[in-house]
Amino acid sequence: MSNQQNELDQLSINALRFLAVDGIEKAKSGHPGAPLGCAPIAYLLYHKLMKHDPAAPKWIDRDRFVLSNGHASMLLYSSLHLSGYNLPMEQLQQFRQYGSHTPGHPEYGETPGVEVTTGPLGQGFGMAVGMAVAEKHMAEVYNRDGHAVIDHHTYVLCGDGDLMEGISHETASLAGTLGLGKLIVLYDDNLISLDGPTELSYTEDVTRRFESYNWQVLSVADGNDLVAIEDAIKAAKAETTRPTLIRVRTVIGFGSPKAGTNKVHGEALGAEAVAATKKNLGWPEDKSFYVPDEARANWDTIKPRGKAAHAAWDASFAEYKTAYPAPATEFERVVSAKMADGWEKSIPSFPSGAEAKKVATRNAGQVVMNAIEKVVPELFGGAADLTASTKTIFKDSASFHVKPHGRNVFFGVREFGMMAMVNGIAAHGGLIPFGSTFFVFSDYCRPAIRLGALMSTHSLYVFTHDTVGLGEDGPTHQPIEHLMSLRAIPNLTDFRPADANETSACWKLALERKSASFMALSRQDLPVFDAALTFAGTPKGAYSMTPEVTKADVILIGAGSEVTTCLTAAAELKAAGITAKVVSMPSFKIYDEQSAAYKAELLPAETPKVSLEAGATMGWYKYVGSNGAVIGIDRFGASAPGPIAMEKLGISVANVVEHAKKLVKK
Amino acid sequence: MSNQQNELDQLSINALRFLAVDGIEKAKSGHPGAPLGCAPIAYLLYHKLMKHDPAAPKWIDRDRFVLSNGHASMLLYSSLHLSGYNLPMEQLQQFRQYGSHTPGHPEYGETPGVEVTTGPLGQGFGMAVGMAVAEKHMAEVYNRDGHAVIDHHTYVLCGDGDLMEGISHETASLAGTLGLGKLIVLYDDNLISLDGPTELSYTEDVTRRFESYNWQVLSVADGNDLVAIEDAIKAAKAETTRPTLIRVRTVIGFGSPKAGTNKVHGEALGAEAVAATKKNLGWPEDKSFYVPDEARANWDTIKPRGKAAHAAWDASFAEYKTAYPAPATEFERVVSAKMADGWEKSIPSFPSGAEAKKVATRNAGQVVMNAIEKVVPELFGGAADLTASTKTIFKDSASFHVKPHGRNVFFGVREFGMMAMVNGIAAHGGLIPFGSTFFVFSDYCRPAIRLGALMSTHSLYVFTHDTVGLGEDGPTHQPIEHLMSLRAIPNLTDFRPADANETSACWKLALERKSASFMALSRQDLPVFDAALTFAGTPKGAYSMTPEVTKADVILIGAGSEVTTCLTAAAELKAAGITAKVVSMPSFKIYDEQSAAYKAELLPAETPKVSLEAGATMGWYKYVGSNGAVIGIDRFGASAPGPIAMEKLGISVANVVEHAKKLVKK
Repeated sequence: MSNQQNELDQLSINALRFLAVDGIEKAKSGHPGAPLGCAPIAYLLYHKLMKHDPAAPKWIDRDRFVLSNGHASMLLYSSLHLSGYNLPMEQLQQFRQYGSHTPGHPEYGETPGVEVTTGPLGQGFGMAVGMAVAEKHMAEVYNRDGHAVIDHHTYVLCGDGDLMEGISHETASLAGTLGLGKLIVLYDDNLISLDGPTELSYTEDVTRRFESYNWQVLSVADGNDLVAIEDAIKAAKAETTRPTLIRVRTVIGFGSPKAGTNKVHGEALGAEAVAATKKNLGWPEDKSFYVPDEARANWDTIKPRGKAAHAAWDASFAEYKTAYPAPATEFERVVSAKMADGWEKSIPSFPSGAEAKKVATRNAGQVVMNAIEKVVPELFGGAADLTASTKTIFKDSASFHVKPHGRNVFFGVREFGMMAMVNGIAAHGGLIPFGSTFFVFSDYCRPAIRLGALMSTHSLYVFTHDTVGLGEDGPTHQPIEHLMSLRAIPNLTDFRPADANETSACWKLALERKSASFMALSRQDLPVFDAALTFAGTPKGAYSMTPEVTKADVILIGAGSEVTTCLTAAAELKAAGITAKVVSMPSFKIYDEQSAAYKAELLPAETPKVSLEAGATMGWYKYVGSNGAVIGIDRFGASAPGPIAMEKLGISVANVVEHAKKLVKK
Repeated sequence: MSNQQNELDQLSINALRFLAVDGIEKAKSGHPGAPLGCAPIAYLLYHKLMKHDPAAPKWIDRDRFVLSNGHASMLLYSSLHLSGYNLPMEQLQQFRQYGSHTPGHPEYGETPGVEVTTGPLGQGFGMAVGMAVAEKHMAEVYNRDGHAVIDHHTYVLCGDGDLMEGISHETASLAGTLGLGKLIVLYDDNLISLDGPTELSYTEDVTRRFESYNWQVLSVADGNDLVAIEDAIKAAKAETTRPTLIRVRTVIGFGSPKAGTNKVHGEALGAEAVAATKKNLGWPEDKSFYVPDEARANWDTIKPRGKAAHAAWDASFAEYKTAYPAPATEFERVVSAKMADGWEKSIPSFPSGAEAKKVATRNAGQVVMNAIEKVVPELFGGAADLTASTKTIFKDSASFHVKPHGRNVFFGVREFGMMAMVNGIAAHGGLIPFGSTFFVFSDYCRPAIRLGALMSTHSLYVFTHDTVGLGEDGPTHQPIEHLMSLRAIPNLTDFRPADANETSACWKLALERKSASFMALSRQDLPVFDAALTFAGTPKGAYSMTPEVTKADVILIGAGSEVTTCLTAAAELKAAGITAKVVSMPSFKIYDEQSAAYKAELLPAETPKVSLEAGATMGWYKYVGSNGAVIGIDRFGASAPGPIAMEKLGISVANVVEHAKKLVKK
């Protein structure tokens, strides 16, 4: 490398460093340590090594970059700004301010070029594994000889915290098993975490650990050595059957007076230290948000390079489309997140009536998935080692692990990693991913569910064994508070279908809404309701199951398996001369979206109400009001056969009838 | 080993196997695979190697055994029964039935000899690490030359699922760093998980992985080779500075027709296969719940051995007590979970009034912890690499890692592992443990919080940065639904103090209640309220902050930092001629425990109410009723300085005043 090139590199890297430092200083909050230490890595990736077109941040075949240590957000924002993404200098100056596109941690959908929301440690890593899975699957499905329409790398920058988190274990282990050769993780190995030197609590041999996962592990001794970093990345790209971890020994807060200590991790440097850092690195002390012309010109070379790469891809895709019109059309469709025309015709309905076979909603889910398998080829996912129980498997498709075109992913007992991967697959584009496990273990993956809701990715979280009705496994496996706890998450659509037909209708809605949702399905068999009624009602979130009732003495509101209980109770009440309307509420979220008029008609304030759900009661008071009764379970469950557990915990026809009678006072 | 001894061993092991098989068969549900495969391990531990006294299951210096693969519960119950614990045969015959002491998964407090509740995979492993930490700390604190009052091992049996879970990474890595030489994990390495062969999703090199954590790893090629297993356990005990993992290659469902496959994992064998298994292993096919006399006599030898070991310890403790009366008395006190006499006098109060310094409740928490440090020496814990932010540190104590008598544990960025360890430390006895992190990351450790609540261990979960008031870190770090989601967990006490004095009062309650609780503390400074008022009111869960108000036009209910907002709103309303009573509600759970009379007086049905909390509104409707207004945040937060985020999201005096006026219609 020439001296001149070296100087230009350093100038460009320092421009990046000081945009970050100045942004944090202006905000008076943020994390300068990692941007100072990792700027050379970001520069190399964005400026030289990554395939990306700043003018088209959604180009499907771009290399992905995930900043798993999301607190280093200003490193990412500054890289995007200098690369020419639509993130003007004013935005860097509005870092962490209300309404800016530069929030404290990177947010998907908020900033062009930000691939996923990061900050909760480990999840960026996990989502990147999902992206690499999406890439591998789509490449296998769509690429043809000589036409690689999907062929990109996924890069991650992560810190100690990411690798301490359990999710890094879950997803790194699976990434090794899956042989994700195009996943390249750069580890900011700076020996410092928030509490101090990492040796306080973190002394594992990271190299050996990742080798045990079947990863290639490389080391770079000096985080400022551009040649060494580039060589390592080249070696990572050359290894196509294993993911690569590159340990880069950096100095946290490089150049600043407190470099190499935890003091420089999580707060603005302060005017004095900013000046000292600029002086140390030969930067004008009196300038802020300063980009020297030569640095700007150097960074600007990305634009034509990116444009050319993108144009070449466009040309190649045009040829592909001529040669393979069918997959090309399908590819364009899935990438633009459109469902296939008429796909909804494949949504099945189930026979109802007294003679009809009872169906557990988990089994109904399996029927739905397999009925739409062919028309929704972008549906892709699996379970956390519970396929036999959750029934979320495509019977006609292979295991992705064995044959990458297969749509069944065996995630292993890794709930959190699974759902983070689901989010990453969704953020990648081109696929609609799902993960599944027992409902009680939604707790294990809750941080990923929240992040999917926050990103509003089209992530489907499918849970089965939704109440104490699952029976003998007992309190550790019986969900109680899970429904309400998940319904409390903003932007997350809840689905708890009452029968097979509602399950089918909920699957349709989950696919149409293109945002994060969860489904809670029963282990036990349930009667099937009239398809016309349920398919018309479910899209309103709640609806009357007793359209024949015009004026009710009491309204019984239930969800899931308890709707059946409410219907039986209504029949008993009728025999006692009390007219009850039964409302099924498969989705709080969707019901809340309905018009005031619809709500007033369905649940008039003056009519007393009884709600019944085999779970925490907390959220029902809003719908039942003061003149009603809320029946649920606010204690832990009990190990017993399902029907006994339900009965003992008060989820019974008798209990509903008793409460309703008391309210009606007849 | 003599042939005779070998035959007796096999008979005793098969007795164990078939009690498990018969229990599962009678229940028509359960997991026979692991009991059949692992019976030799359980036999060796319970019958020969562990120090335990079946007549005294709570003897503090017993070896601990944790069945991390809790679905193998019948293996544990059968071992306890045969060892002579108070678990009669009728209980084995009531496996998985309502009201029995043999629930589907082992439950702490339900069955003598069950050390912790397991089933949610990985958590048993994590809790065992906590137990080994407790042992090491207590040994350092209490043992004296020649007097080892705490000197026991912690054994774990775990399966593939446990090791796939991220928590196994978090806690194994930390166990290695901490050098927990008395932790011995037996890994049921049977190559089968629920979905099929583990190679489907799990191909990591477990030996290399655990070596990377600084563990000793040993292998046993045949899970039926008692000599090899015993030799490995002896080698594990000989290694005192590293934990040991023993990989035992077992055959899942050993002896049954479907041995070695996933078909034998999770359901009863069925009559035919039970018979075939009995035949294969030379067991009378026509007998169930059968224990041959020789086997019974052999198992019974545990009782005198256990009694003798316990008596020896008692004698040794008596000598210790003579030689070291002070620590002995303290030891007896902490082991019996009694607080020191007069400890509560050290609970601090903070000056209030307009002139008084504002205090963030996280800082108040630090003051409380350090004020009671000396009088509550059993308080022990730390943070997940956020000590500087959560302030949960004993200033006068060392790091446990560096000096095991130190009471500050640096858990690293391992929230889930931390809280599982907290539960394990609590279950060990002798200590009151706490863990802490940002409130938003309560999601990461939620499965452990649930398990602590289920076990009702004295586990303290301390969270700070409790609302969007934390500011610039933005939506990824701003809790919204977390308060309600945790309040929905049964048996878990919620604490969200409004000021420094409530924080102090909440800490007192958290220590007195001896069950699982969480605290949500503010990042930002808050005014301090009158100590007499808050200390009197907090134990009721909710109380009036305006005792001078006897007849209110409207009631403003707030929690945490929003109580201050309510008080300011009340002052504005007063100026407008409206009398508002302000209620502070630091604990939903404790308020719910109060008498109906107290509730009717504090929150009369007829008075309109406005609730204010900077979080999900879901749970407030219960207290506000239909004639009120619920103000909260049902969307994700926003990256901005704290006061701006609060204001923009509607948590403001003006908003409360507006709603109150509307309700009062003045």
